[in-house]
Amino acid sequence: MNLDNLYSQLTVKTQAKLALVVLDGLGDIALPENGNMTPLEAARTPNLDALTAQGCAQGRMIPVAPGITPGSGPGHFALFGYDPIEYQVGRGVIEALGLGLELKQGDIAVRCNFCTLDENGLVADRRAGRIPTEECERLCALLKQKIKKIGSAEVIIRPGKEHRFVVIFRGAGLDAPLTDTDPGRVGEPILEAKPLDPKNAKQKKTAKLVADFYKAALPLLQGEKRANGFLMRGIDKKPNIPAFETRYGLKPACLAVYPMYKGLAQLVGMVKIEGPETIREQFERYLAEYDNYDFFFIHYKYTDKYGEDGNFEAKKKAIEEFDAALPILLRKKPDVLAITGDHSTPCPIKGHSWHPQPVLLHSRYSGNDKLERFTETGANLGSLGVFEAKYLLRLMQANALMFDKFGA
Amino acid sequence: MNLDNLYSQLTVKTQAKLALVVLDGLGDIALPENGNMTPLEAARTPNLDALTAQGCAQGRMIPVAPGITPGSGPGHFALFGYDPIEYQVGRGVIEALGLGLELKQGDIAVRCNFCTLDENGLVADRRAGRIPTEECERLCALLKQKIKKIGSAEVIIRPGKEHRFVVIFRGAGLDAPLTDTDPGRVGEPILEAKPLDPKNAKQKKTAKLVADFYKAALPLLQGEKRANGFLMRGIDKKPNIPAFETRYGLKPACLAVYPMYKGLAQLVGMVKIEGPETIREQFERYLAEYDNYDFFFIHYKYTDKYGEDGNFEAKKKAIEEFDAALPILLRKKPDVLAITGDHSTPCPIKGHSWHPQPVLLHSRYSGNDKLERFTETGANLGSLGVFEAKYLLRLMQANALMFDKFGA
Repeated sequence: MNLDNLYSQLTVKTQAKLALVVLDGLGDIALPENGNMTPLEAARTPNLDALTAQGCAQGRMIPVAPGITPGSGPGHFALFGYDPIEYQVGRGVIEALGLGLELKQGDIAVRCNFCTLDENGLVADRRAGRIPTEECERLCALLKQKIKKIGSAEVIIRPGKEHRFVVIFRGAGLDAPLTDTDPGRVGEPILEAKPLDPKNAKQKKTAKLVADFYKAALPLLQGEKRANGFLMRGIDKKPNIPAFETRYGLKPACLAVYPMYKGLAQLVGMVKIEGPETIREQFERYLAEYDNYDFFFIHYKYTDKYGEDGNFEAKKKAIEEFDAALPILLRKKPDVLAITGDHSTPCPIKGHSWHPQPVLLHSRYSGNDKLERFTETGANLGSLGVFEAKYLLRLMQANALMFDKFGA
Repeated sequence: MNLDNLYSQLTVKTQAKLALVVLDGLGDIALPENGNMTPLEAARTPNLDALTAQGCAQGRMIPVAPGITPGSGPGHFALFGYDPIEYQVGRGVIEALGLGLELKQGDIAVRCNFCTLDENGLVADRRAGRIPTEECERLCALLKQKIKKIGSAEVIIRPGKEHRFVVIFRGAGLDAPLTDTDPGRVGEPILEAKPLDPKNAKQKKTAKLVADFYKAALPLLQGEKRANGFLMRGIDKKPNIPAFETRYGLKPACLAVYPMYKGLAQLVGMVKIEGPETIREQFERYLAEYDNYDFFFIHYKYTDKYGEDGNFEAKKKAIEEFDAALPILLRKKPDVLAITGDHSTPCPIKGHSWHPQPVLLHSRYSGNDKLERFTETGANLGSLGVFEAKYLLRLMQANALMFDKFGA
């Protein structure tokens, strides 16, 4: 039997409130130059410490599979309880979400780079010399002004940073994925986007649309010195994902600041609560919305940001700022509270990694691992062990007494 | 999606050197009569201790599945990253490898015992009274001299210890497995070897070959008092296993002393480096070959041997001898170093066991579990948790930064 079906069958409705607090990229590794401590270990966290002392279960979570480093998409999908290998999201979709674009069912999203073409039409620079963002915005405005539709499909163009932009094709009868037009190296022509499934008529139609878009757009860039072409990657559609509320029987809300995480939450049908800009404001808003939802996804970005920078002190400080805000959330303590990351972003790696992230679970029924603090090393000793992140939501449900007994 | 395919898709080439050091049967269990310590805990291991202090991740590995005791084949296949249930190797093949026989594609290998038949041709002793090895050698020489071929198939006969020997059938159009000819108890006749798949014509041909071999061989043994018959078990072919180098993008070498482990490494396509007889020589040779390979499998037998003898002191001493040699390896420290066993061989059990073996992983990115030593009890507290041994190689690859990020 499919395990998700079993969970569904056992699910009962309760009045419990659940909160999943994600410190993006929280996990880290200890190195001698940092006193053999991780940022979480080095940080002063009196409020997390007090929560731990009240009784928490700890453990570490494998985001996808042993040794695999997830992007933000798979990292969050696992936290939302969806198998990140089963539910994959195309790069175009992630990029569109990151720029705050709303995707409708059937939309095809594409990640684009402006590039430089030589006199023979071959790619000379795959990033157009990393043109400044303002130039990208000017060129996108130009394309937007001239190209509103291709055939019957609406075309949405949104500039990103430097040479990056996103195109969305919105219309009936489209499908994806298609292959990239980016040849992946210089000295080659822009490739044709082809259906991944050659027998799929809707993918063929989308390929034609992409080709027609090139025909319309390239002449508009002809006078440009650097950005006289563009390359498309991750041509994919909005994935069809079972709605969070149906799947778990929980009415979910998202309290995130960055567009990407709002977008990921929206993909599973969470309600985006707009407004808050800081973790304090996010927690304040949680208090205000407490009665309106059953499940709160609260996302804090800065642990990942400073991990990516390799900035140990700043990551440590971001954790301390989070800790200082935590008492606001605890004014109306959710029945089940999980605090974790979507993956590790170790400062020595300056990027996401495969290291299992620590997780803290607190509820009346979480048990007490009797650890003094919430840290990576402590979490190694916790009652949750090392487990796949996709099960965290099931453990939260269990702690909310949302599952009937299985069998007699 | 198949997880191995996902790993393959994410694999990138790096310059990293990886070393997998296997102390065969390393894991053990503590008993009061041994001061509540395992041999690894009781051993003086200053060099392992120093390595641990530099920063290591530890954990314990389930060789096959909870409670399952592996033979050397499944134990090593898991360490080589192959699911030991998916990739099974027949006992005839393992026995042939153990005797140093090289197997070619299509070869059928059979594990044989000399046995005693009574006047009615029924099995009276399944091990022919455990005849001495010299007698086995004499009888095998006799069979070899008289039987070079059966039909068009070449017959290779190699004596083992006491009553054991191995037969290999080499020819076109053969297949296996076949059922055993060993009835499993006395008072019954030698059984007919039958195709496991009755519709498989190649298996039928092989069954005929086995029957013909009996017809040729039994008359030659008629005058023998004890070894006047023989029983065949594990009639199987050399398995078809995806090559290690293709699978992982790593050029592998094997530094083993005992034929069985060379043979297992050869089954996955590792290059056998011949010559070294001791662990010091193996490490010296590793230094010499450092530039020629990306992956080194270094096998140390004596921990298992003394575990099988139930000799706690000798197993402890074998670990100390290994530890004393370790600084040679560390003169050119591999980028990723794993030290573990292929299974546990607890002295109180005097044989292989199901107890998860401890594993130590050291790299710039392994993190530091802040444990003082590498032991079973320490490994219980490590960041790797308890995991299936087949993932160790994937974790080693991750530590070598050999995997792209999954998803955006």
